Amino acid sequence: MKIKDLITTEDYTKEELLDIIELSLTLKKCVKQGYYPPLLKNRTLGMIFEQSSTRTRVSFETAMEQLGGHAQYLAPGQIQLGGHETMEDTARVLSRLVDIVMARVDAHATVANLARTAEIPVINGMSDYNHPTQELGDAITMFEHLPEGKFIEDCKIVFVGDATQVCASTMMMSTKLGMQFVHFGPKGHQLSPEMQRIGEENCRISGGSITVTDNEEQALANADFVYTDVWYGLYNAELSKEERHAIFMPKYQVDNDMLSKAAPHVKFLHCLPATRGEEVLDEVLDGPASIAFDQAENRLSAMRGILVYLLRNSLSEELRHGAAKAALLADLFEIL
Amino acid sequence: MKIKDLITTEDYTKEELLDIIELSLTLKKCVKQGYYPPLLKNRTLGMIFEQSSTRTRVSFETAMEQLGGHAQYLAPGQIQLGGHETMEDTARVLSRLVDIVMARVDAHATVANLARTAEIPVINGMSDYNHPTQELGDAITMFEHLPEGKFIEDCKIVFVGDATQVCASTMMMSTKLGMQFVHFGPKGHQLSPEMQRIGEENCRISGGSITVTDNEEQALANADFVYTDVWYGLYNAELSKEERHAIFMPKYQVDNDMLSKAAPHVKFLHCLPATRGEEVLDEVLDGPASIAFDQAENRLSAMRGILVYLLRNSLSEELRHGAAKAALLADLFEIL
Amino acid sequence: MKIKDLITTEDYTKEELLDIIELSLTLKKCVKQGYYPPLLKNRTLGMIFEQSSTRTRVSFETAMEQLGGHAQYLAPGQIQLGGHETMEDTARVLSRLVDIVMARVDAHATVANLARTAEIPVINGMSDYNHPTQELGDAITMFEHLPEGKFIEDCKIVFVGDATQVCASTMMMSTKLGMQFVHFGPKGHQLSPEMQRIGEENCRISGGSITVTDNEEQALANADFVYTDVWYGLYNAELSKEERHAIFMPKYQVDNDMLSKAAPHVKFLHCLPATRGEEVLDEVLDGPASIAFDQAENRLSAMRGILVYLLRNSLSEELRHGAAKAALLADLFEIL
Repeated sequence: MKIKDLITTEDYTKEELLDIIELSLTLKKCVKQGYYPPLLKNRTLGMIFEQSSTRTRVSFETAMEQLGGHAQYLAPGQIQLGGHETMEDTARVLSRLVDIVMARVDAHATVANLARTAEIPVINGMSDYNHPTQELGDAITMFEHLPEGKFIEDCKIVFVGDATQVCASTMMMSTKLGMQFVHFGPKGHQLSPEMQRIGEENCRISGGSITVTDNEEQALANADFVYTDVWYGLYNAELSKEERHAIFMPKYQVDNDMLSKAAPHVKFLHCLPATRGEEVLDEVLDGPASIAFDQAENRLSAMRGILVYLLRNSLSEELRHGAAKAALLADLFEIL
Repeated sequence: MKIKDLITTEDYTKEELLDIIELSLTLKKCVKQGYYPPLLKNRTLGMIFEQSSTRTRVSFETAMEQLGGHAQYLAPGQIQLGGHETMEDTARVLSRLVDIVMARVDAHATVANLARTAEIPVINGMSDYNHPTQELGDAITMFEHLPEGKFIEDCKIVFVGDATQVCASTMMMSTKLGMQFVHFGPKGHQLSPEMQRIGEENCRISGGSITVTDNEEQALANADFVYTDVWYGLYNAELSKEERHAIFMPKYQVDNDMLSKAAPHVKFLHCLPATRGEEVLDEVLDGPASIAFDQAENRLSAMRGILVYLLRNSLSEELRHGAAKAALLADLFEIL
Repeated sequence: MKIKDLITTEDYTKEELLDIIELSLTLKKCVKQGYYPPLLKNRTLGMIFEQSSTRTRVSFETAMEQLGGHAQYLAPGQIQLGGHETMEDTARVLSRLVDIVMARVDAHATVANLARTAEIPVINGMSDYNHPTQELGDAITMFEHLPEGKFIEDCKIVFVGDATQVCASTMMMSTKLGMQFVHFGPKGHQLSPEMQRIGEENCRISGGSITVTDNEEQALANADFVYTDVWYGLYNAELSKEERHAIFMPKYQVDNDMLSKAAPHVKFLHCLPATRGEEVLDEVLDGPASIAFDQAENRLSAMRGILVYLLRNSLSEELRHGAAKAALLADLFEIL
């Protein structure tokens, strides 16, 4: 059987990731043309949030509904993972009541355990370790904004600032795809040796590269994509404004001057929300290089692709049959 | 392009408001006959609540689902308007993930800013300034209960008690429609001069009238509709029972005696929730003149009309085409 | 007119309960075959929760969506039953905005009042008194796991431990169906005399029996089903671990040794969540006799049946007509 969960993209081959990306792009094309294929009809997604998240929640819920399904929002405090009952029991019960689950969790082990014990597909909606649905949305966005004449394997992406889980995720996806990945961050806030080893292993297969440096010139040279994230760190251990400014200011703030050191066609990415005036200036986020709001939209594009991909084996025969008649649907199923 | 938001009915002409009202009444007729036109298929409404509200939330959500769409409930605390990110960024992101947004806000500026920055229609689900969806539901209710032989322009409506945002809204809608509007309330709790100027400007165009008075006989004479609202004021500055009784009791309590000073066919309106025994007695709210529960139902009627009106340009060609064949749908689109 | 609420199964005859059970089993068969009859199209369920509940909420919401309808989740604190307005007014307003309501409440009187004042069907989603939707899910599960050659009326069910509302509910359903019901619990935590009288009255009609005892051998002898629930008691008056262990340990803990005193084919039930190591050991809950996770799934099966049963009179003519043509739907309507 194929991989059934999406806990980390490290569990996927480059080809599988490209399948999800292609599927997402095709579904986006359908929706933009006003055609909403009901591929997830009668399918229910349980959404478990240990922390609030607008973007992740809204994009998952919209994705399910646009494709004919439904998403249930289980807000922080409305479901307990490991309270009155064991996580295993919760997972077994949910497996009987819904078709697929996503969880945004405090600790990565929580969503990993959920996946291990559930009998239905589980999606990691961000943990303290990684953020795979963000990765796929970002990859889609980069494919839509490839520099003229370049393949994804020819591109260089620089992640600027703190080694957040989004930094780690950007590294995982880009090294998997065979890109040149650079983390440009200060010592003490650079990708861990363990993370770097994951990237090196990916590069061994994909032909990409991974570099971690605090040298701006080297980092930015010929960069096709510059990516940054907030500086305040993880939920329960947020850095104060003074602390984070002392660490990252002004060297790691993305401004037009920094962008000018990259390739002329450089595009700017941000997972949002942004703290304007800290890790990025308005001149960049609102400037011509910014594709951050396309990125936000592609969270939704990615969710559609991920959900259909993970549930493809449970799509009804009826849907498959009807689909065979429609050209767009034919495209969809070709890659399933 | 037509007006795309519903922040205040002051942005609409009388004719546009009548279009929405007629559309709402037609959709209500459809639903009562068991026909739910799927006009909002694949459309998603984001519902942002800075305060809880049963009526507004339930009626919006039911309206979307009855017409084939979906509503996402973003509860107080689950989305921040102007927290970690700017309101502008939140608005831009939501514009990519849903099709239309409603917001119930503490401060009117919040929903006005949201509308200014969002690329999709924004609906004001009540602010400290006004309550336009309530206005439309109330207008629908008055049309359904017009005194025999009278047009809406012939009718007099008296708002009794505190100058709440519902009082202001009732004034705006009724003066826009050309009715005679009276606010019967104690000095210090009467509609502000600014509000009165808005009403006067509306009357100049519509031929209606606006009066603010603490004279009961004058206020009630020949009134076709009597409307009241709670006395405790706005959320964070609620009056104590002693304070509000000192101000409004007994003169502004709606009882059968007060109603007897109006026209014999007078109808009683209340936006609910009511504090029975304060601003209204059971004999009135449960009496034959009360149309308060029809009003509550017409929140839903109004939501259907408002949503279809604001999203009419994005209804798919397929729907428009299919609609042309069906008589009821033809009626619907005639007024779009 | 038929009974329109589900507040307690005591308001139903055995035949009516069997109708709901049969309907639930038929709908389950449909869904397992990938056919989701859209019997609840355009129907909206309002779900009011005074306490959080994963299982009840998720199963109701999935049931509505699978059958083409929609469920609105009104979380604790998001709707007030008897706050700013009277329960009666809330019930009247909800009756205008949704088609059916379920409520999980602290005090049974709340849901009973809601049912009395609402104009639409009301379902008790558990109170401090009983848990009728659990009863129906459990009955479905017992029908699926009847000992070979036995009818339900031939079976004996033993509820072990505290006289929770689930114990009371198990008693009500089993005595209604004509089973032999035993509560095996310590004095002070046994079914009340009032409850026992209800069971005796049921048995008078059904031919079943009710026994309350602290004698293990007598209780377990020839039992077809053994059921238990947690020991910590009701929400706001939870017993400490020390208190509950002093009362129930080790005599009332369900282990393999206890099961060995029942019939060889005995099945184990638990309404979940379970406190493993307290009222039940892993060897039982995860053992071959356990049907607790089937039970959890049948919460969903029961919801489908209950919702269609209570809304059957409002199913559109169109649906009834189309249904006549389909064999499976014909089965469904045969028992409506």
